[in-house]
Amino acid sequence: MKTMEEYVRTIPDFPEPGIMFRDITSVLMDPEGLKLAVDSMIDALKDVDFDVVAGIESRGFMFGMPIVYALGKSFVPVRKKGKLPCETITESYALEYGTAEIEIHTDAVKPGQKVVMIDDLLATGGTMEAAIRLVERLGGTVEKAVFLIELKGLEGRKKLKCPVDVVVSYEGI
Amino acid sequence: MKTMEEYVRTIPDFPEPGIMFRDITSVLMDPEGLKLAVDSMIDALKDVDFDVVAGIESRGFMFGMPIVYALGKSFVPVRKKGKLPCETITESYALEYGTAEIEIHTDAVKPGQKVVMIDDLLATGGTMEAAIRLVERLGGTVEKAVFLIELKGLEGRKKLKCPVDVVVSYEGI
Repeated sequence: MKTMEEYVRTIPDFPEPGIMFRDITSVLMDPEGLKLAVDSMIDALKDVDFDVVAGIESRGFMFGMPIVYALGKSFVPVRKKGKLPCETITESYALEYGTAEIEIHTDAVKPGQKVVMIDDLLATGGTMEAAIRLVERLGGTVEKAVFLIELKGLEGRKKLKCPVDVVVSYEGI
Repeated sequence: MKTMEEYVRTIPDFPEPGIMFRDITSVLMDPEGLKLAVDSMIDALKDVDFDVVAGIESRGFMFGMPIVYALGKSFVPVRKKGKLPCETITESYALEYGTAEIEIHTDAVKPGQKVVMIDDLLATGGTMEAAIRLVERLGGTVEKAVFLIELKGLEGRKKLKCPVDVVVSYEGI
């Protein structure tokens, strides 16, 4: 049986020179890779009491939804600005050049709800930090953030105050 | 038990005046609504022989992934231009003003593979028509397209040559 590291495909110099892009489409192309990825993330939640998964657009949608479907939880999308049709709150986060904004529906998380955050990749942690602020502004408590892949060299974990778990860690950036 | 129509929330005049936006976030907020949505789409595939699900960015990712996880199939994302890191092919489709482009990895579908297309909404059908062209250019055969919601007034079904199934149909646009 292949390991998760063997399913992940690395693309040098994408989207720009010097970046080693960790591609998860090669994981999803193999039913066993896909099952291993989702089951490993579910395993990271086995001792966590929670009501809701918040998935970050758009690869967080891919992993968040099979997790909630399997566990009987509800799913809340955190989306780029302008995509959600009802009342939202917004947080911004830093990009390499400039900033970007993400949103959540104001009725998506009820005060006191226990929330797990899901995304594919922990890089600088900026997007996830902003997503956690959104959940906390609505009164939710973030019990854990789970990622498929971590780029340890970018130290994104230091930005996140909640428990963090990852399936695969790469030393570099 | 609520019906799928009762889980879908309708937002008048989003994203522009005259549009009745069918919001699926209200479906996903309720674990029973989420399960009903995914199980209904799985039910539409019970007599379909297929290997791969192609999900259209980004709500097609939400529904495609729990389907493949439950059925032991593989998942292929069809994405907006510039998001996929390996070699891709591209198709364009008409928007109200101008055109947009979607892409698929060239190794995502092998010649002869049987593919099911998944998205949340069948409106004009333009995006799905372009996505089907991508799969067919790679040698895949499209066995069925399944949507959670159809806006019948836009007649998107007429654009699609494959079998089509939907969970909920609305008469208007």
